[in-house]
Amino acid sequence: MSFTFGKNFRVTVFGESHGDSIGVVVEGSLSGMKIDLSFIQKELDRRKPGGVFTSRRKERDKVEILSGIFNGKTTGAPVTMRIKNEDIDSEPYDMIKDTPRPGHADLTAHYKYGFYDHRGGGIFSGRVTAAIVMAGALAKEILLQNEIKILAHVIQIGDIRVSKEISDEDIERNVPISNVNCADLDVSKRMEEEVLRAKKDGDSVGGIVECRVIGVPIGIGDPIFDSIESVLSHMIFSIPGVKGIEFGSGFSSASMKGFQHNDPFFIRNGKILTLTNNSGGILGGISNGMPIVFRVAMKPTSSIMKKQRTVNIKKMEECEIYLRGRHDPCIAIRAVPVIENAASIVIADLIWDKIYKSL
Amino acid sequence: MSFTFGKNFRVTVFGESHGDSIGVVVEGSLSGMKIDLSFIQKELDRRKPGGVFTSRRKERDKVEILSGIFNGKTTGAPVTMRIKNEDIDSEPYDMIKDTPRPGHADLTAHYKYGFYDHRGGGIFSGRVTAAIVMAGALAKEILLQNEIKILAHVIQIGDIRVSKEISDEDIERNVPISNVNCADLDVSKRMEEEVLRAKKDGDSVGGIVECRVIGVPIGIGDPIFDSIESVLSHMIFSIPGVKGIEFGSGFSSASMKGFQHNDPFFIRNGKILTLTNNSGGILGGISNGMPIVFRVAMKPTSSIMKKQRTVNIKKMEECEIYLRGRHDPCIAIRAVPVIENAASIVIADLIWDKIYKSL
Amino acid sequence: MSFTFGKNFRVTVFGESHGDSIGVVVEGSLSGMKIDLSFIQKELDRRKPGGVFTSRRKERDKVEILSGIFNGKTTGAPVTMRIKNEDIDSEPYDMIKDTPRPGHADLTAHYKYGFYDHRGGGIFSGRVTAAIVMAGALAKEILLQNEIKILAHVIQIGDIRVSKEISDEDIERNVPISNVNCADLDVSKRMEEEVLRAKKDGDSVGGIVECRVIGVPIGIGDPIFDSIESVLSHMIFSIPGVKGIEFGSGFSSASMKGFQHNDPFFIRNGKILTLTNNSGGILGGISNGMPIVFRVAMKPTSSIMKKQRTVNIKKMEECEIYLRGRHDPCIAIRAVPVIENAASIVIADLIWDKIYKSL
Amino acid sequence: MSFTFGKNFRVTVFGESHGDSIGVVVEGSLSGMKIDLSFIQKELDRRKPGGVFTSRRKERDKVEILSGIFNGKTTGAPVTMRIKNEDIDSEPYDMIKDTPRPGHADLTAHYKYGFYDHRGGGIFSGRVTAAIVMAGALAKEILLQNEIKILAHVIQIGDIRVSKEISDEDIERNVPISNVNCADLDVSKRMEEEVLRAKKDGDSVGGIVECRVIGVPIGIGDPIFDSIESVLSHMIFSIPGVKGIEFGSGFSSASMKGFQHNDPFFIRNGKILTLTNNSGGILGGISNGMPIVFRVAMKPTSSIMKKQRTVNIKKMEECEIYLRGRHDPCIAIRAVPVIENAASIVIADLIWDKIYKSL
Repeated sequence: MSFTFGKNFRVTVFGESHGDSIGVVVEGSLSGMKIDLSFIQKELDRRKPGGVFTSRRKERDKVEILSGIFNGKTTGAPVTMRIKNEDIDSEPYDMIKDTPRPGHADLTAHYKYGFYDHRGGGIFSGRVTAAIVMAGALAKEILLQNEIKILAHVIQIGDIRVSKEISDEDIERNVPISNVNCADLDVSKRMEEEVLRAKKDGDSVGGIVECRVIGVPIGIGDPIFDSIESVLSHMIFSIPGVKGIEFGSGFSSASMKGFQHNDPFFIRNGKILTLTNNSGGILGGISNGMPIVFRVAMKPTSSIMKKQRTVNIKKMEECEIYLRGRHDPCIAIRAVPVIENAASIVIADLIWDKIYKSL
Repeated sequence: MSFTFGKNFRVTVFGESHGDSIGVVVEGSLSGMKIDLSFIQKELDRRKPGGVFTSRRKERDKVEILSGIFNGKTTGAPVTMRIKNEDIDSEPYDMIKDTPRPGHADLTAHYKYGFYDHRGGGIFSGRVTAAIVMAGALAKEILLQNEIKILAHVIQIGDIRVSKEISDEDIERNVPISNVNCADLDVSKRMEEEVLRAKKDGDSVGGIVECRVIGVPIGIGDPIFDSIESVLSHMIFSIPGVKGIEFGSGFSSASMKGFQHNDPFFIRNGKILTLTNNSGGILGGISNGMPIVFRVAMKPTSSIMKKQRTVNIKKMEECEIYLRGRHDPCIAIRAVPVIENAASIVIADLIWDKIYKSL
Repeated sequence: MSFTFGKNFRVTVFGESHGDSIGVVVEGSLSGMKIDLSFIQKELDRRKPGGVFTSRRKERDKVEILSGIFNGKTTGAPVTMRIKNEDIDSEPYDMIKDTPRPGHADLTAHYKYGFYDHRGGGIFSGRVTAAIVMAGALAKEILLQNEIKILAHVIQIGDIRVSKEISDEDIERNVPISNVNCADLDVSKRMEEEVLRAKKDGDSVGGIVECRVIGVPIGIGDPIFDSIESVLSHMIFSIPGVKGIEFGSGFSSASMKGFQHNDPFFIRNGKILTLTNNSGGILGGISNGMPIVFRVAMKPTSSIMKKQRTVNIKKMEECEIYLRGRHDPCIAIRAVPVIENAASIVIADLIWDKIYKSL
Repeated sequence: MSFTFGKNFRVTVFGESHGDSIGVVVEGSLSGMKIDLSFIQKELDRRKPGGVFTSRRKERDKVEILSGIFNGKTTGAPVTMRIKNEDIDSEPYDMIKDTPRPGHADLTAHYKYGFYDHRGGGIFSGRVTAAIVMAGALAKEILLQNEIKILAHVIQIGDIRVSKEISDEDIERNVPISNVNCADLDVSKRMEEEVLRAKKDGDSVGGIVECRVIGVPIGIGDPIFDSIESVLSHMIFSIPGVKGIEFGSGFSSASMKGFQHNDPFFIRNGKILTLTNNSGGILGGISNGMPIVFRVAMKPTSSIMKKQRTVNIKKMEECEIYLRGRHDPCIAIRAVPVIENAASIVIADLIWDKIYKSL
């Protein structure tokens, strides 16, 4: 009962890693809105596996429209998109039926569902994020038409962390050419090495992704339960592997004083801005017009090629497991387009009535 | 439109800092469930202002039942509770009508609402968390009857951080006698000094609260949008001043390897446990039977007694502001009961159908 | 879990017939909107018991504001209103603890809840509709400011039915002076006699209420699950005693031909209207600009002063019951303000974003 | 924003009459539940057009599974089903782009959406009810496993009405062999003539469908906003062409006295039953164990082959319209499987936690 998100721009995801399709139904689409499918395809391609830094599973991930778009425009009806699963290799998953992989949902899925599609992780697979990307790309396209831009980039992999100031332009220019979606190309190289080192070891490594939402007008979001932080974090923790989220000053605020933390207001060109952005663009749950900035901690991929301790849940005895299959050595890399598009869904949902109004 | 939370144990909060009442409606309460009002009162008392480490506002905060409880038992109808606002001093707030306080919702509330109850922060006030505490205490009482315990404690204030291992017993024993809700009494003393130092300076200081949920059975929560992390973070970011949340290994997972991060399974007394708890008790969004552990970053209180830069939004010119009023020097302290009770609402909501089932 | 209604103008009702209060929390209220409490009080007064044609229970039903209104204007925070229960006589209800009243919720409440507040019907009491009236009156006031008028009137009691055409003006002029809320004053007299005859017999009688929503702009409502009919009927069946609802031609459409039923379009003063209104102002779930017209069947009051067959659920044996207490001989009469205000909530919810937009 | 229904067994429909697919996503499906696709196909076939009494559009309407079923069992993930649109003839719809058909959603869709898929009525088409049937058939199959049976049948077409008592067995035996889904085979013949007469005239005719839900245990449903009547009517009014709904005694209750209307309780075989069933199996919004009975008024099909008055919305002038295309002469006939399956969704949603519990 947790496959639907949003109030005004509402997405319902479906699909399993080794089932027929991964797809999404989007409600709330305006009618008569021009949709460029190649934009959605491009976002899907950014998420697509393949290459040395990601899983070797090969999928075309070609988006198909099942409803809601007619003559290149939205009709007001739900927009349904899906991709077919093609390069399915379920065989490595037979061994895990009774021996849950450490760090995976195998054990909890077993206890929750009894029976489920264990192949490739089923609904728990990171592959299901393709549904989020499809819906998010639709949102992103609309947000761009409303001059709202969402930019994510990797700021840490293992112990390698970006230390210099990164401009929005750095992200736009460098992330597409970095193999690890890092905006500092020097650091990017060192991150690549870190990832390959882990991979060579049959291991994986964690990372941190930063995301910026630029151009959100002042006054979006709500106090209490629908604060921007509440709904963004709700969405972001839907992405497998996320361990933490922080806004603006985040965890570093704990060691700060109020005078240092409060962002002083000033006026430039008739607009009220803040000198610093410790608030991460949000005050009282509501946008203050500054960029919304948050950081997401991604754990190292659970699927590793090393012998691990686990249990056989049928025999209820301890044992070892040694996985095969095709896995990402560092999920933080492919998390970049996922986080961007996930955030797009949330921002579209929050701002939907204003977009509507502007028609 | 953001004053309601939950699907099965649903709370709707109401009230403003300087209005008539702060209250909450709780839907989903079982009928015939014994409710000890003194338990709810005790949780409210833990949150109550007063004393050198918190605000000097004096409120009795006496819980009153408006509906849903008859002869000491829930009737199946919504349970409505409220406290009256009594010690109201709205005068200091007149000055902020046109000059938003840095770090506060004054600016965003102005732009969102045009007109709102600016006195004491209105709906944006931390005082509204009393509504969360009332509903949470009801949940907590029911969770305790089902052997689920929720324990929060301060682990950092400013640069003072608890470094030793803290047991559940430490929390239960020491937090009630610590002035700053810290389970390590030596560290607690140093935290007190840190708080008083900030207060003397007319300043404030941030902190980190850890929370543990003990006794949640395996299989609670859902994949994707209703992962335990999603709904817990959604709730926790409703609390004013929260800047970040992390589960288990959290942000430190970024620099970890998969082999180190994956919690190995083993069997003890016929139960499957994990050797470490980097997962924070959650795999694939679902409880794995280990304690659910999360940490919350609280910013330093925005209301400080120092001159600050701000703007006059009527005249649209820069100016200075010098606040008076009664404020907490460190909101992390009083956040402890709020986070415990907020988490209780979430866990009750997630587990509601199991509790129902057990009748 | 069914005490909340609406998406944009959301109401949460609470209270029981013989508990402390009956109240409602309204979310979605615009900030800065002028609210005249005497308007809300007037609607409550229309619903109030008292007089020969209704129950003799005496309640002041004086509305109190607990939150959301400051200096006579809404603040953006939830608006909470309540009335206190005063003239409580629970004694007659002791007898029904084990012997459910035919036609009442006593039996089903017993099986659903085990324990509940049986006094006066608890949450099942018609008195809880006062909460709907309070919220609806708030909505109605706002709708009136947007030139939307909602008018209900009794068209049938027992076998006495209004046969002549009733204009909107008839309703506005005559309903307030009719003892049974009927717009045809001649028929009204005969209805009075019908009611008094039933009352004298210790019996009750059913009726039909018609409701018109005038001034709804074209384009409100949605296809499929949020058709105007869907949400209006959802709300109306929340009112105790409702047995049926029909829109426009309603049940008579079954014996009509398409050519006769289709309302022909024509143009007058630059607006598209229909010659007839069999559609009841709704096409495809969406308003077409004509008055929305629906009729509601109200059963005869279940509480009658005649000996009836029932069972003792403790002893599981058949028995008889002879009720006392203060009851309405015909609930259709007092249903008029309830239906008007219930419909106001629905229309406000559907049109909320347009009202918002007009600011 | 109105394509999703339900809380526990939640359906999201998508598709348009002349788009790629009609489909549905079902959340809340139990894992490990055996699903017989041929059962779902059979329900779809009952709804399928073709034959003299229904539209001549020819569709295979073959259900395809996109997710949620693996090895013939549900996996816990959303179940997604769809049918492809095949026999599309959009050409007759070009003429209606500017001249809305009387009785149709053309006008309101135009005003609401500006742009939409006008071909075949788009999302407003009765064809979208195939999505409700697919989801409902899944629900129905599960309900049958829990001994809950849902039976609908036509009781009136035009002025021809079933007058004799109809048993559940009559419905099960006769409806499948009646050309108009009527359980009284003599009346069925006369109804056929009525339909053919209307058809020959290029006209259409209305009807009434009765539906019975047998086997619902006592205690399902909720007071106030989630009364069984509220949620059932909400769903039923989603079906195009529905003009009214009544439960038990329905509109006839208006002319009844309380003593006559109250269903007396008695005991048979240790169970509490009622002598009559004026309540329609529902007291206080909650099931009382008796069959839930409701009747649905269906208007005559709007698409008729007669010249009608309408307007040209571009030129804003009055004109005439003369439709072609393939239409049902009486939608009440095909409404029978739609109402059965729509009701199945609602009952499954209401009873979901009990079904879950029984595992």
